Amino acid sequence: MNTETVTLKGHIIDSLILAKVLDTILQMEGTFDISEIKISATREESSIAKIAIHADSPELLEEILQAVQLHGAIVEEISDCSTAIAPQDGVLPDSFYASSHLPTQVRLKGEWIDVEAIEMDLAIRVQHDPPHAMAIPMAEVKIGDDIVTGRTGIRVFPLERPKERDAFSFMEAQVSSERPHQHVIADVAKRMRMIKDNREKILRQGDAAGNADLGTKVLFVGGPAIVHSGGREVLSWLIEEGYIHVLFAGNALPAHDMEASLFGTSLGFGLSAGCIAPHGHEHHLRTINKVRGAGSIKQAVESGMIKDGIMASCVRQNVDMVLAGSIRDDGPLPDVITDTVKSQGAMRAALPGVGLALMVATTLHAIATGNCLPAKVPSVCVDINPAVPTKLSDRGSFQAVGLVMDSSSFLRQLARELNWPG
Amino acid sequence: MNTETVTLKGHIIDSLILAKVLDTILQMEGTFDISEIKISATREESSIAKIAIHADSPELLEEILQAVQLHGAIVEEISDCSTAIAPQDGVLPDSFYASSHLPTQVRLKGEWIDVEAIEMDLAIRVQHDPPHAMAIPMAEVKIGDDIVTGRTGIRVFPLERPKERDAFSFMEAQVSSERPHQHVIADVAKRMRMIKDNREKILRQGDAAGNADLGTKVLFVGGPAIVHSGGREVLSWLIEEGYIHVLFAGNALPAHDMEASLFGTSLGFGLSAGCIAPHGHEHHLRTINKVRGAGSIKQAVESGMIKDGIMASCVRQNVDMVLAGSIRDDGPLPDVITDTVKSQGAMRAALPGVGLALMVATTLHAIATGNCLPAKVPSVCVDINPAVPTKLSDRGSFQAVGLVMDSSSFLRQLARELNWPG
Amino acid sequence: MNTETVTLKGHIIDSLILAKVLDTILQMEGTFDISEIKISATREESSIAKIAIHADSPELLEEILQAVQLHGAIVEEISDCSTAIAPQDGVLPDSFYASSHLPTQVRLKGEWIDVEAIEMDLAIRVQHDPPHAMAIPMAEVKIGDDIVTGRTGIRVFPLERPKERDAFSFMEAQVSSERPHQHVIADVAKRMRMIKDNREKILRQGDAAGNADLGTKVLFVGGPAIVHSGGREVLSWLIEEGYIHVLFAGNALPAHDMEASLFGTSLGFGLSAGCIAPHGHEHHLRTINKVRGAGSIKQAVESGMIKDGIMASCVRQNVDMVLAGSIRDDGPLPDVITDTVKSQGAMRAALPGVGLALMVATTLHAIATGNCLPAKVPSVCVDINPAVPTKLSDRGSFQAVGLVMDSSSFLRQLARELNWPG
Amino acid sequence: MNTETVTLKGHIIDSLILAKVLDTILQMEGTFDISEIKISATREESSIAKIAIHADSPELLEEILQAVQLHGAIVEEISDCSTAIAPQDGVLPDSFYASSHLPTQVRLKGEWIDVEAIEMDLAIRVQHDPPHAMAIPMAEVKIGDDIVTGRTGIRVFPLERPKERDAFSFMEAQVSSERPHQHVIADVAKRMRMIKDNREKILRQGDAAGNADLGTKVLFVGGPAIVHSGGREVLSWLIEEGYIHVLFAGNALPAHDMEASLFGTSLGFGLSAGCIAPHGHEHHLRTINKVRGAGSIKQAVESGMIKDGIMASCVRQNVDMVLAGSIRDDGPLPDVITDTVKSQGAMRAALPGVGLALMVATTLHAIATGNCLPAKVPSVCVDINPAVPTKLSDRGSFQAVGLVMDSSSFLRQLARELNWPG
Repeated sequence: MNTETVTLKGHIIDSLILAKVLDTILQMEGTFDISEIKISATREESSIAKIAIHADSPELLEEILQAVQLHGAIVEEISDCSTAIAPQDGVLPDSFYASSHLPTQVRLKGEWIDVEAIEMDLAIRVQHDPPHAMAIPMAEVKIGDDIVTGRTGIRVFPLERPKERDAFSFMEAQVSSERPHQHVIADVAKRMRMIKDNREKILRQGDAAGNADLGTKVLFVGGPAIVHSGGREVLSWLIEEGYIHVLFAGNALPAHDMEASLFGTSLGFGLSAGCIAPHGHEHHLRTINKVRGAGSIKQAVESGMIKDGIMASCVRQNVDMVLAGSIRDDGPLPDVITDTVKSQGAMRAALPGVGLALMVATTLHAIATGNCLPAKVPSVCVDINPAVPTKLSDRGSFQAVGLVMDSSSFLRQLARELNWPG
Repeated sequence: MNTETVTLKGHIIDSLILAKVLDTILQMEGTFDISEIKISATREESSIAKIAIHADSPELLEEILQAVQLHGAIVEEISDCSTAIAPQDGVLPDSFYASSHLPTQVRLKGEWIDVEAIEMDLAIRVQHDPPHAMAIPMAEVKIGDDIVTGRTGIRVFPLERPKERDAFSFMEAQVSSERPHQHVIADVAKRMRMIKDNREKILRQGDAAGNADLGTKVLFVGGPAIVHSGGREVLSWLIEEGYIHVLFAGNALPAHDMEASLFGTSLGFGLSAGCIAPHGHEHHLRTINKVRGAGSIKQAVESGMIKDGIMASCVRQNVDMVLAGSIRDDGPLPDVITDTVKSQGAMRAALPGVGLALMVATTLHAIATGNCLPAKVPSVCVDINPAVPTKLSDRGSFQAVGLVMDSSSFLRQLARELNWPG
Repeated sequence: MNTETVTLKGHIIDSLILAKVLDTILQMEGTFDISEIKISATREESSIAKIAIHADSPELLEEILQAVQLHGAIVEEISDCSTAIAPQDGVLPDSFYASSHLPTQVRLKGEWIDVEAIEMDLAIRVQHDPPHAMAIPMAEVKIGDDIVTGRTGIRVFPLERPKERDAFSFMEAQVSSERPHQHVIADVAKRMRMIKDNREKILRQGDAAGNADLGTKVLFVGGPAIVHSGGREVLSWLIEEGYIHVLFAGNALPAHDMEASLFGTSLGFGLSAGCIAPHGHEHHLRTINKVRGAGSIKQAVESGMIKDGIMASCVRQNVDMVLAGSIRDDGPLPDVITDTVKSQGAMRAALPGVGLALMVATTLHAIATGNCLPAKVPSVCVDINPAVPTKLSDRGSFQAVGLVMDSSSFLRQLARELNWPG
Repeated sequence: MNTETVTLKGHIIDSLILAKVLDTILQMEGTFDISEIKISATREESSIAKIAIHADSPELLEEILQAVQLHGAIVEEISDCSTAIAPQDGVLPDSFYASSHLPTQVRLKGEWIDVEAIEMDLAIRVQHDPPHAMAIPMAEVKIGDDIVTGRTGIRVFPLERPKERDAFSFMEAQVSSERPHQHVIADVAKRMRMIKDNREKILRQGDAAGNADLGTKVLFVGGPAIVHSGGREVLSWLIEEGYIHVLFAGNALPAHDMEASLFGTSLGFGLSAGCIAPHGHEHHLRTINKVRGAGSIKQAVESGMIKDGIMASCVRQNVDMVLAGSIRDDGPLPDVITDTVKSQGAMRAALPGVGLALMVATTLHAIATGNCLPAKVPSVCVDINPAVPTKLSDRGSFQAVGLVMDSSSFLRQLARELNWPG
């Protein structure tokens, strides 16, 4: 019989981790003894369980060990992580370890090292002197890079239930159109206010004054339905008031926002008249053309061509914008990054410091953001179509609260919680 | 060659009626000459077209005539409508005429008579002395009733584009989650205010003082998601302010509303706490049981058991309630009509005077209401799921404006337009 | 300190029951010691855990005990269940116990008695001599009935993971449009074949020859989209081949099915011509009228008026039909039960023996069926709209496998697995 | 009074064009006289109408003329189109004409010239000697290009109802989950067979032998759900049989297809085992890495690494593939074009000759394809989510038939019509 003992620590009952580990072992046709179990009786204490896993073959045992490690199980006999050399630029060694979006450490020379820039589905590149580990996308690997392989010497830390019981608490995350949204939106507003305060404190008094865990930036990821459905003014207000610090969008949100500034329409629909404007469907093309002529969104705003709206507020408030192109774009606008790999890089570069992500009325950008967002960042996904928040959580990409509602109603209610006068 | 001439009158270009009639003739393999066409150059004037229809056989000609009549074409040589005797209680003569929900007249002894209580898919029962015509459901026909058959001597009046250009104007009706809702909701609020004023004027000064076309009642058809999603207080406010006069619902809306009054939960979800209450899923059963014990919703309110919410407001404001049961009901509440044919009758009886129908977060009741609502009554269908408003308009049941949004956001925005302080 | 010890037995890790119980205690602000834990190392053995629960007050302890009992925890000191007398016909005592749909026992005179006809959200009526317990709906309680109250002396048996690993295995239940359907449909077909064989064996050789757990009936719950989308012939074939024994539907499925037999259309859409028939929207009314004239569906089939289709096959195969009316019905057909409480009773009466429930393209009837189906009956819910299977599982009503696909494609693929020649 | 006379020709009643033109005039507050109307009595003949348009100001008259021209109205006094010079690379003159996707001509030196490569929302670049006109995207315009401006000297030809009455006939286009799909799928299969025959005839006997209007290529646009839902084998079969000639996809379809070849899974779900494989979610990453190592999909197939599936069949059958990247991609695969503007160019370059477009289970690529597909190419959009086909038709991008069904069921039924043995 092949046996190996693993240890589980943390809120392993609470988080269903123990159950999942034991279930995994049985499903993979292993057996086990629980050699020791100590279950915490309070939320603060950790529980601990030691499980001896038995399997018919060493191969099966190895497979089971790999599987349970994903749930945070640590193999007793710990060695350093194994690595291999990348054979070409952009190509990983065959047995590369694919990262999760949870906090991760690798063991180098007997020492556990945090993996930087952790993100779903990346590889881990290590340097040995000084020891250093970083998650990198496949496209960025260089020939000769030392890449972590296999599953030994790696540990992943499951997220624990946060102490405050707000909408982002573990296991409360869910998607339903039949739940009152007020509480969730109030919790989002509260967190936005906290991040804004934290940011201001740090800007004024330096890093030590703030709370690094909380973050200093709110990321807003938005689609053009925000403009179509009448949410433009209120989003501009949120930006002007300093509640949003990073914006991810495509070509359409800025195009329709600036169309509204130039023509008073969105996709040709008159926002104040409430009906289709003649030739209105051309307005977004004329808008894109004008902004291309101006050279950039910034220049269009600063020259006075674009006077109000989301883009104008972003320029005025120095919001960090990443506009990522897609194949359905008209134009595109001069600020749109047309290379998708470069767009991903720009999104990644804007993430450090983000303490809350709001994803509103966009499928493509929400999923792309989910892919590169560490699990620990609270996020809210708002869409009229329940499939979008559900798809995000299906991808296991992060702990997202889903709200099924139209973007304009969401933004208005959020802004009212933050004392919007509208 | 078999020929018959029909006349089309009204805004036949505007409403696409001419196009549809000509298209119908061609599709059914007839041919035509337009013997006369006079097209109005203003919105007020009527257009007129005379069309000679040719067909290969008298049968085909008859079929085409029947088809174009549905679009309002009037056959030149007009005879009285034909009738036949109902052979049994609840059974119509084979060739009975199935009504549309548009204003309809039948010709009796050379005279055009309005059909009363017109509604989709009913039969028309006539009396000859004095001449009288009424739409009746199949289940209510009695042996010996004189029922209109065939398609001669019947005319149907297509709805014309209303003069005011608001959300209910013809051809504006549409369902989209990507249009701003503010205009539509503002138009709904305006109409609610007009109906409330009209109602009060008539109550104070008599019928002659009011506008019969506008109606004196607002019908609200609602589902339980209103309570789950946090729209209970605002709907109560609308009722208390006198904006709603008839309520159609099932068992669940009142059960969850009164659950909120008794337990502070809705389907067990704590409305103010924002989380699931222990054993909360039983609360609606306990609520139903208590109200059954009280004898009726009215008694539950008047005894002080139910203190606030939608039902309490309805009782206090004498709102005309029809609670229609369905097979998924628990209990049900004592006021719920369990016989579906009786429910339909009660809904029909409450319709006269309705000048606006709001259907919010309910599929079954919205469709049932759509089935018995005359086409001329403006209606708004609000649902988070775009399938519901789309299904209603697919059934051709009436000119409905669809809004894709959550019920709570809709009610809040509507109430704000009516000066809700919340 | 107030303390009580409870015992958990069964696959308590596997089924997440232990985790849920401990989580429940902590959430309700109790604490615990695990005094004993023995976890099974194979699928067959049971695990056991003894948990001492502590709470600040006797009231809180009682509340926690009640909550954990729902997960199958048994309080050490067991007394008989408490009961109270129903105060009126149709009204339960205030503190009545609301049943779950899981197998349940109550303790009467020191003896554990199975509750018959268990179903979600009912009351339990007991008789003492001989001891007997039965779940009954609120509307059927009579004054003086002895009704179980509180939560002591009651035990609920969580479903255990079935031994065979098919689509119905515990924890595999899920709803996704992005999973291959073939396996699930093959498993459904296999089970239909097993039930058919079991049924035939019992009919030929008596009860002892069969497998009571497997069931002897397949229940089909269907909506009219089956006919609209072209699934009529294949469903008829399944019935003719003896794979379906009970049918739950409304008015529309039989109306459109018989419309297809009489007129070749469904909702006026020509099923073989592939386009709208002139006046086709009236066909279902004419169909309903004709069948009303015939007296019943059975007579319409036996007289030769209805020659083929779902209804004709049901009549010929003696399928047990429950047609439950709703307020959106035209007509309705003579066999439709218009009283919703009677419909529920008829559905309940048809359930014993059902070993598989297929719910296809119907929301109302699927939810109503889910409400009265014991948890142990495997069920499959098929709908093009993912909300329907999701809603069913949200209601916790039973272990349902959801398939997001159109009904016609489902039925064809299912029938092909059963050697349909089409 | 300002008056101008326009002429409408073609099936102007049939296609609702007359009604729309008159409606447009009234809505824009103009008036009109119909000076001449001749309505065709057969499908083959054209109708003709001359309409004198009156407006209060020359500006309004010009606006109305511009609006009605979009419906094909031709201004009596025709001049050449006006043009202006592009001021910068990538920037159009302000008043540029934005193209529709309908066949279009511009008038140069008194002569009507066809606009080549017509597509929605492009500009038209003209050369004068010899006269030539071509639609070009904004990003491709060069400084000094001569670009059509305004709306004079331009005519657009509305699509006419095709002579054969199949699923692609004008005005039959619609999206419904409640219609039988068989007819539509049979019509699609028939057209695929016709295009395949036409292609083979032209390849063997030269252009003159074929039917240029019918096209010689079938375009397939697909998303990864095809692989997840079990449609991989049948799509491979369609490719191997020569029914598909161009493939548009992203990174995920080929990644999951080749994952199935290498690991037997799709997104980690075992396609033949019917359950999740351990670490299966990493398989697509390992697949992408291996194919990157091979250099290209072609080399991966030709080296024998990828043995079967969609990509293998495409390589073997020389299908023209455009794989367009997006920001949610992992990897990406070496053949994926990461620049979105280059992807659009590659898609455009593959369109000439396409006679049928099938868009299956993809939102982004379907919309991008719709944007660059001329209106005259019949297309079918298949998705489980009704929003996708609806969104396509909302954008007015082309005459698309929508089918609401899962991709695997669609492909199987389509292949069966083409004698698939599966």
